[in-house]
Amino acid sequence: MDLNPADARLAAQLPQGVLREVTPAYLEEPRGRYRGQAGLVAAPRDVDEVAAVVRACAAAYVPVVPRGGGTGLVAGQVMPDGPAPLILSLERMAAIREIFPEEAVMVAEAGATLQQVREAAASAGRQFPLSLVSQGTAQIGGVLSTNAGGVNVLRHGTARALCLGIEAVLPSGEILRDLRRLRKDNTGYDLRDLLIGAEGTLGVITAASLALAPVPAETGVAMLVVESPAAALSLLSLAQARMAGGVTAFELISGQGLRFLDAAFPDLRQPFADRPDWLVLIEVGLPTGLPADAALAGLFEDAAEAGLARDGVIAQSGQQAADLWVVRETIPHANRRIGAIASHDISLPLSEIARFIADAGAMLADEADLRINCFGHLGDGNLHYNLFPAEGRRREDYEALRRDLTARIHGMVVARGGSFSAEHGIGRLKVPDLERWGDPARLAAMQAIKTALDPAGIMNPGAVLAAQ
Amino acid sequence: MDLNPADARLAAQLPQGVLREVTPAYLEEPRGRYRGQAGLVAAPRDVDEVAAVVRACAAAYVPVVPRGGGTGLVAGQVMPDGPAPLILSLERMAAIREIFPEEAVMVAEAGATLQQVREAAASAGRQFPLSLVSQGTAQIGGVLSTNAGGVNVLRHGTARALCLGIEAVLPSGEILRDLRRLRKDNTGYDLRDLLIGAEGTLGVITAASLALAPVPAETGVAMLVVESPAAALSLLSLAQARMAGGVTAFELISGQGLRFLDAAFPDLRQPFADRPDWLVLIEVGLPTGLPADAALAGLFEDAAEAGLARDGVIAQSGQQAADLWVVRETIPHANRRIGAIASHDISLPLSEIARFIADAGAMLADEADLRINCFGHLGDGNLHYNLFPAEGRRREDYEALRRDLTARIHGMVVARGGSFSAEHGIGRLKVPDLERWGDPARLAAMQAIKTALDPAGIMNPGAVLAAQ
Repeated sequence: MDLNPADARLAAQLPQGVLREVTPAYLEEPRGRYRGQAGLVAAPRDVDEVAAVVRACAAAYVPVVPRGGGTGLVAGQVMPDGPAPLILSLERMAAIREIFPEEAVMVAEAGATLQQVREAAASAGRQFPLSLVSQGTAQIGGVLSTNAGGVNVLRHGTARALCLGIEAVLPSGEILRDLRRLRKDNTGYDLRDLLIGAEGTLGVITAASLALAPVPAETGVAMLVVESPAAALSLLSLAQARMAGGVTAFELISGQGLRFLDAAFPDLRQPFADRPDWLVLIEVGLPTGLPADAALAGLFEDAAEAGLARDGVIAQSGQQAADLWVVRETIPHANRRIGAIASHDISLPLSEIARFIADAGAMLADEADLRINCFGHLGDGNLHYNLFPAEGRRREDYEALRRDLTARIHGMVVARGGSFSAEHGIGRLKVPDLERWGDPARLAAMQAIKTALDPAGIMNPGAVLAAQ
Repeated sequence: MDLNPADARLAAQLPQGVLREVTPAYLEEPRGRYRGQAGLVAAPRDVDEVAAVVRACAAAYVPVVPRGGGTGLVAGQVMPDGPAPLILSLERMAAIREIFPEEAVMVAEAGATLQQVREAAASAGRQFPLSLVSQGTAQIGGVLSTNAGGVNVLRHGTARALCLGIEAVLPSGEILRDLRRLRKDNTGYDLRDLLIGAEGTLGVITAASLALAPVPAETGVAMLVVESPAAALSLLSLAQARMAGGVTAFELISGQGLRFLDAAFPDLRQPFADRPDWLVLIEVGLPTGLPADAALAGLFEDAAEAGLARDGVIAQSGQQAADLWVVRETIPHANRRIGAIASHDISLPLSEIARFIADAGAMLADEADLRINCFGHLGDGNLHYNLFPAEGRRREDYEALRRDLTARIHGMVVARGGSFSAEHGIGRLKVPDLERWGDPARLAAMQAIKTALDPAGIMNPGAVLAAQ
């Protein structure tokens, strides 16, 4: 490699053989809004090499940008300005170190993909109950660093809830050896949860012990037609009470989403010939002895009697269940074909959702002629609230409005106790939102912690907090 | 009140009417090993008054010791030396601010007792699934500050897992307004989980939004005779697989515990005429349509066939279920009557438990003539491993050995990846243990965070970390 003198000096301080060629893939993020600067790329093979790389960068005042699968949507993985960073890729630390089936615990290195982790759990007769569309590429280190969510949060929590312990390299280059496999341990401050969701700004997670879950004896899927988001939420309460918390997914689908499917994927079979305004996809995981279709039929009867659901389909086979999921999972693809003006990854307290959908719809109707596809993980209060051009118009027609509409939506969300980033994190994209909407005492404490653990500011500067 | 000049100066800076008389109860902890110094006692009525008290103390360099119900077992709530502190009691902030039944969320002030919280949840048709023997006195602020556990952690997690957001006063006197009611929110560092379990050393929690759970349609209890702790753990795996995670408690009871019950409570009816070496108490919460006694009978059949359980009792009524729990819950009372030499609140990776019990038993047999009562929350890997005098001998006979036995047991636990404080926290009692057994990088990071958020060191000095 031809290196400039500064890079060559740093390279000489790194462990043998860690440098990789700087290919464009290391500088990109999926939405293509940011492009990282080309510095060095290092791919250490073990935690000691990670520590050596971090120490060398600290000594040279070179920023470190940790990189997993690179699937994050808020540009936490690319540093477009400031001094050229060293990109620290975890790709060579991809081992499943150990599985303890009777403990329902796995120890995996940060570079293992989510799919590898899920397959390793399945091979041990357990499940790792976090699933993302990007799981073939997303690495578990990044999943933890961004506290990723997905469709099963309702039952199993976000990544944070599935992590028992971490190994990490702190900005000082010290190794935090905290790979506990314990469900209870009250011995000091919760550094694990501090590093989880810190997006690589307080250190680099190099391995984690992960909690696995039993594979439910019975699983089932149904899709129910509901009158409104409020009815959907009452249905959720009813379902939770009947299933003793065994609702593993509860997804909202809008009529607009179904019409987008018609337009973009006309061959996709939809379960209801009319296109209802609101559907709910519900998945359950149940104990031995309770057939899921019977449990879902009982739920539907109760819901119909209470006026919460007027029609429904209960999958009678694994294939039918998969077909119902295809409807839900194809919606983001349809969205991409239609082309959104703006997307919002928001969450709200459950009892604010129905009012928010009504109020935001009314606000937008006054502002612009557009279409709204509101869908997502209703059980978690997490909506993907996406705006599209009116029929016959183009995205570009809305360019002048776009930022203002997003600001108004985020403002309505925050005013109702909600979040402007439910799943995706802050990265670099949402730093201004955090500065605008975040609690001042919380921001001050975050900055104090950042300065305490990373006084030189070398770990992923500009992500989460503005670079100092 | 007659105050010395320094106290009088501080008192003049406090909000009107917050001072309370310094009664002995404010200076005590349940085990009677520590006695707090008498300083001022303040009981603010709202978060603004808490902030004013903290600011006044910071300005006067007076330490602040937050106090909830005072039930903690590691002396986090009393400051026996150093400058006399202000004791900040949350007793007047005891409101259940709001319940959102459809969200399954409650917002409670720190001074509400755990029992109040549980009763308020029940009155809304939900449950707050954390239960402690001390719940009539323990306050939710203290429950969170110590990340308390109890018998239902297996299914619902510790206090941390049940908290969605907090309101707190930071050592700077700033108010952290973070009472989110969201299941997903990735907007920056996890200060909530940092303050939870920090035992009042990073701030004072003044209110919290708590996650409630559905009340299961069906609940059941069984007590099964198992050959060994290893068999008990295999039974746990089997039960988790059959119940789809619906095992709400899984408690281990030893033959020694049953014999202590015979000695201390001869009238207590035990379910098995012989006194088996090991029993498991299992509780399940199941969906509508699956009677718990049938589900437990199915589990027992499977377990018997696999050679994991040789006898068992399945409760056929709520009264029988309660009677089985009485056996488990009376064991700590029997322990107190027998009089322990030393108690250990430990946790281990599940697959280390059987070996630990064997190895620790062998080590102790070589060291001393004593009796071991090992029992507890096996599903969480959390054992109460308590040592008692041999029959006919007194506790005092073991005084010379006591500390050494504890150090050896903690050493064996830590060597197996376990914790020397599973539930109770560090407080002041276990600071030396943390210094001895804690990961050095973790301790350094904890100290850096403490210094960053509390540079003057006024918040509960000497708890968790030694006073600087």
